[in-house]
Amino acid sequence: MKKVSVLLLLLSFLINVPLLRADEGMWTFDNPPLKQWKERYKFEPSAEWLEKMRLACVRINDGGSASFVSPDGLMITNHHVALGQITKLSTPERDLVKNGFYARSQAEELPTKDMEANVLVSYENVTDRVQGAVKKGATDKQAAEQRKAAIAAIEKESTDKTGLRSDVISLYSGGEYWLYRFKKYTDIRLVFAPEEQIAFFGGDYDNFTFPRYNLDVSFLRVYEDGKPAKTPNYFKWSETGPNDLDFVIAAGNPGSTARLLTVAQLAYQRDTGNLLQKKVWELRRDILENYAKLGSEQARQASNGIRSFNNSLKRLYGQQEGLMNPRMFAKKEKEEKDLKAALAKKPELMRQYAPAWTNIKAAYAQLPAMAKRLAFSTLAPSRLATIASGIVRYGDEIGKPNDQRYDEFRDARLPGLKANLLSTAPIYPAMEEAALTAWLKEGVKTLGPNDPFIRAAIGDAEVDEVVKRAVNETALKDVAARKALLDGGKAAVDASVDPMVTLARRVEPVIRQLRAWNEDKIQSVETRNGELIAKARFAVYGRTIPPDANFNLRITYGRVKGYDEDTTLVPFETTYYGLFDRAASFAEKPPFDLPERWRGAASKLDLTTPFNFVYSADTIGGMSGSPIINRNAEFVGINFDSNVQKLSNRYWYIEEEEGSRAVGVHSAGILEALRKLYGAGDLAKELTGK
Amino acid sequence: MKKVSVLLLLLSFLINVPLLRADEGMWTFDNPPLKQWKERYKFEPSAEWLEKMRLACVRINDGGSASFVSPDGLMITNHHVALGQITKLSTPERDLVKNGFYARSQAEELPTKDMEANVLVSYENVTDRVQGAVKKGATDKQAAEQRKAAIAAIEKESTDKTGLRSDVISLYSGGEYWLYRFKKYTDIRLVFAPEEQIAFFGGDYDNFTFPRYNLDVSFLRVYEDGKPAKTPNYFKWSETGPNDLDFVIAAGNPGSTARLLTVAQLAYQRDTGNLLQKKVWELRRDILENYAKLGSEQARQASNGIRSFNNSLKRLYGQQEGLMNPRMFAKKEKEEKDLKAALAKKPELMRQYAPAWTNIKAAYAQLPAMAKRLAFSTLAPSRLATIASGIVRYGDEIGKPNDQRYDEFRDARLPGLKANLLSTAPIYPAMEEAALTAWLKEGVKTLGPNDPFIRAAIGDAEVDEVVKRAVNETALKDVAARKALLDGGKAAVDASVDPMVTLARRVEPVIRQLRAWNEDKIQSVETRNGELIAKARFAVYGRTIPPDANFNLRITYGRVKGYDEDTTLVPFETTYYGLFDRAASFAEKPPFDLPERWRGAASKLDLTTPFNFVYSADTIGGMSGSPIINRNAEFVGINFDSNVQKLSNRYWYIEEEEGSRAVGVHSAGILEALRKLYGAGDLAKELTGK
Repeated sequence: MKKVSVLLLLLSFLINVPLLRADEGMWTFDNPPLKQWKERYKFEPSAEWLEKMRLACVRINDGGSASFVSPDGLMITNHHVALGQITKLSTPERDLVKNGFYARSQAEELPTKDMEANVLVSYENVTDRVQGAVKKGATDKQAAEQRKAAIAAIEKESTDKTGLRSDVISLYSGGEYWLYRFKKYTDIRLVFAPEEQIAFFGGDYDNFTFPRYNLDVSFLRVYEDGKPAKTPNYFKWSETGPNDLDFVIAAGNPGSTARLLTVAQLAYQRDTGNLLQKKVWELRRDILENYAKLGSEQARQASNGIRSFNNSLKRLYGQQEGLMNPRMFAKKEKEEKDLKAALAKKPELMRQYAPAWTNIKAAYAQLPAMAKRLAFSTLAPSRLATIASGIVRYGDEIGKPNDQRYDEFRDARLPGLKANLLSTAPIYPAMEEAALTAWLKEGVKTLGPNDPFIRAAIGDAEVDEVVKRAVNETALKDVAARKALLDGGKAAVDASVDPMVTLARRVEPVIRQLRAWNEDKIQSVETRNGELIAKARFAVYGRTIPPDANFNLRITYGRVKGYDEDTTLVPFETTYYGLFDRAASFAEKPPFDLPERWRGAASKLDLTTPFNFVYSADTIGGMSGSPIINRNAEFVGINFDSNVQKLSNRYWYIEEEEGSRAVGVHSAGILEALRKLYGAGDLAKELTGK
Repeated sequence: MKKVSVLLLLLSFLINVPLLRADEGMWTFDNPPLKQWKERYKFEPSAEWLEKMRLACVRINDGGSASFVSPDGLMITNHHVALGQITKLSTPERDLVKNGFYARSQAEELPTKDMEANVLVSYENVTDRVQGAVKKGATDKQAAEQRKAAIAAIEKESTDKTGLRSDVISLYSGGEYWLYRFKKYTDIRLVFAPEEQIAFFGGDYDNFTFPRYNLDVSFLRVYEDGKPAKTPNYFKWSETGPNDLDFVIAAGNPGSTARLLTVAQLAYQRDTGNLLQKKVWELRRDILENYAKLGSEQARQASNGIRSFNNSLKRLYGQQEGLMNPRMFAKKEKEEKDLKAALAKKPELMRQYAPAWTNIKAAYAQLPAMAKRLAFSTLAPSRLATIASGIVRYGDEIGKPNDQRYDEFRDARLPGLKANLLSTAPIYPAMEEAALTAWLKEGVKTLGPNDPFIRAAIGDAEVDEVVKRAVNETALKDVAARKALLDGGKAAVDASVDPMVTLARRVEPVIRQLRAWNEDKIQSVETRNGELIAKARFAVYGRTIPPDANFNLRITYGRVKGYDEDTTLVPFETTYYGLFDRAASFAEKPPFDLPERWRGAASKLDLTTPFNFVYSADTIGGMSGSPIINRNAEFVGINFDSNVQKLSNRYWYIEEEEGSRAVGVHSAGILEALRKLYGAGDLAKELTGK
């Protein structure tokens, strides 16, 4: 064989760079797609521009994104991101979900129950330290423990030093580790929310649909020391919004993608994982729907949960349809084959990395037999039970050294965890009882009466009686009781005779055993071999493929642009005319009814005002509430959804040409409603100065 | 084998009745779907009800349907059905296509150039006489001649006796023959037409689309003896239009379906016929588009033709997509297999009918080799050349006995034919020249320079020079010159040195030869064996399957109803709000621009007024302009299109559940525009009495 120079080898690898696809990627701020921006959009932001942008972006830990839109802590997010908090602030007598809310002065702003907002203030690459902590010859399990200890140490050091929330996060399936430091806000107050019916007009039907007509926005204000926080990094509001074909950026916290998974991992999702997930979510949705049928107050209590499961299910159906599509799946097989073929050109790389795929496949072969137990061995459908489990687990974990605890119990994360367990958000015992009873009954059916979790949960008793007693007699509805147990630590928990606590205590060993199995047999194998595959990808493609999303800050970008559908054109934006058309054409039957304020109010609005719009950025759930900004860093809209063409983009990027689009509320449409329908001129003035 | 009684055999056949599918079928008035109406809609019309309905329905021989909506000859059809006539009435100075038209008094009503309207006044079954004319032992060709002679005789007898237009039409692929007698109107005057841009808002993009916003209507009046005709059978106008889920009937003249074709015939369409048709239509469309680019006047001249080809092409693409769908095609194969299997249970039926499929398949095997010659050996793209060919053919045919002529030259049909050849509609020589030149050049490419048609058309000359001379020097632009040739008969035609006439004369023998080949080798086989298959179907299923459409009057029915699309809902109707939304959301860029009268006119209208709507009837092209009536025989809307889900319904019925819908303009929407935007209060009053 001829000798090949290193340079030639390198060139041969560079040829393997996958085609840079238009607008693909949810990029980290340390590696923004500067090349694509420059080439496609002639956009070359400075480092300062990017930093100011990052500091104006907010993560909402309920599961969404937001951004600052005034120097005085004013923040905009989606109505559906704040909906959990708005629900918690509502009562049957004062239903803010149904009727909306506007604080006419700062004094009227309503403190949320347990919202936490984070701003990513700095980040640092700690890959060497984390990966270097793994000793030569360590087993997968040992490697996991060694990495975990290193991570815990890094986080603790950072927290002690800066006082900031400090999380080490894994990127590229463990190919890199980064320390992210967050400024944390916990005093967050509701400023404005429209009626849910206009925020979610068209309901579950129009979810993931375009053309669309949703005022899916809410405004909140972050406070520090009882005063509005100073937020000098914020987005200026654009009164005109985006034009057709404008370049835009959306930055937010995409929840989760699975684009770097191996074919074996994807096949598991397709053949087992997604089917089970579907079963669980449908069951939990159906439980809530049955409860909602009991009356309007029950419907109010269950509504946010139902909506959230329907949303997840609609997305899951789309994802599964994607995986079931042989043409799409074949693309993933080809990607994997191409990467291996590129590796094969360099035997030393091949030797080092090729076993990774086999190892993951072998680990996953054990999963189907355990999947049902992993899915059903939980008390999650009940909030009281979840709190009880949290308290029991806290008792066990808090006594361990920091670096040996479960991730979520490490010192750096304890404040958030405690805030959650001690939240004063309302609890509805009847709904709790209905949910937990139905869940455990399905558990008995699915796992069988002799399953360890089922035995531990109900023993020889009836599900109904165990749950009834636990829900009705538990003291955990009272925050003080929870606090007493947390403060008392393991001794207090062990001594408790509270029937919800004892239920949680009985099932805890089973849950721990399953978690250990999952961590040892699956996750540690995934991490170790995922890291190898990531390195293989770096070797072949460099860092041209962004890491999978994991609810941390990312930049996405694209163009405001309509698309083809069914041989016709879908426009890039809708107008208020369209809202009234859709309402009238369904004779305002729910979910196409308008709230009182909007009914017959067409004459108050300039109906040509743009309302919603689409753009081609690569987004996914979790980016709800992300600011959409133009090249001048002006706020032109807020991301709230994707269209149906994009549903399977968890597993792969879907080309702009296939009509996949993100959906936003238009900045001009928001202003029009605030000023002309909500009498919220002061809020509009804070946004625009006018 | 056990002996089986006739009754049992009969029962076993009845079991084979195919599932009665919801709302399927374009039914003849002699066999309306009374059973389905009663069972599904509790609708049981009297014979008088049906007769009055039939007499209020009109066929427009330009290719569409219409109906009477006042006792004084007032007729409504689609704008696009009348568009050919409106174009012929337009000049560069007075562009009725662009600006619309409204006659404020009967004196202002504009006589169309060559429109013919027919009302089906009576019909009678002549199957025995036609089929009985075929002598035992006749070859396919002889059989065709004998049937033709019988048909000619029946038509002539009827015309002589009644003075009515009398056509014998074939149904069920020749399984039945019916004599249809029509009252004929040729003095038809334009009363109202909106601007094309509102009639066809969204252009080719929104064609076959819903939601939709088209005022696709025009009003004309039929005259007799210079006075408005009395039309006592007309539809009363419904001011409210249809409600969601209302039962409705649409009666009109569906152009052509191919649902009874054999698998061999369908496979030919899929593999050869449709591809060639596509090529021809795209070529003719492209020729016109290139011509239209020369200037606005050229664009005006070509626009109706372009639109018509685009419409046909969009439908053809959908049809071909359907045929290419293996699941759909397999259904047709199964249908044929099931019918044969049912026949197989009765050996005598099998013996009699089974060869029919084989015979058709054998005939079709010869088609692909001839298909290009059949498609390209014509001068059809030029109107002048078409007139010349008509005159040449007339000279040859008129000297033959009535029953030996081509169908379209039989006595009963001569008046319509002559009216067409002598139409005063404008001719645009430059467009004629462009079209014929490009067409013949493509003919040379496709058929080769030695093809008989090409040789006859251009010999050794250049296409450009032959066409230039023919178009520029022909006298046929003058109607009097045409009349002289027609009156002079064959002698005059043979003596003519008009270069367009001599061109037509040169190619005529080739065209006749190809037509003879097609009639002898294909059509006569199809008819003979189609009749056998029809009889086989009658034997197995009775008359439960309606005959294929052939531009004669049919009744269809269904329900006004929205549908699911892409996980959301499409409403059953749109409103004027939606029109302004779609225009604004495309910034009124063509084809989403509004005509002057409509721009900024939203405030003049009640925007909640329904505009277009969908219903589940089984319709197809040719039913454009069909009245949509409710169970009280009130006019609730006018059919003008189908949605994209329905595009392949030429070959099979598409279930309501798959979202296939017909699209209509709403009667209330029409009134709103007439009264509030067009100042056409008098017209509205004639419709409603108010």
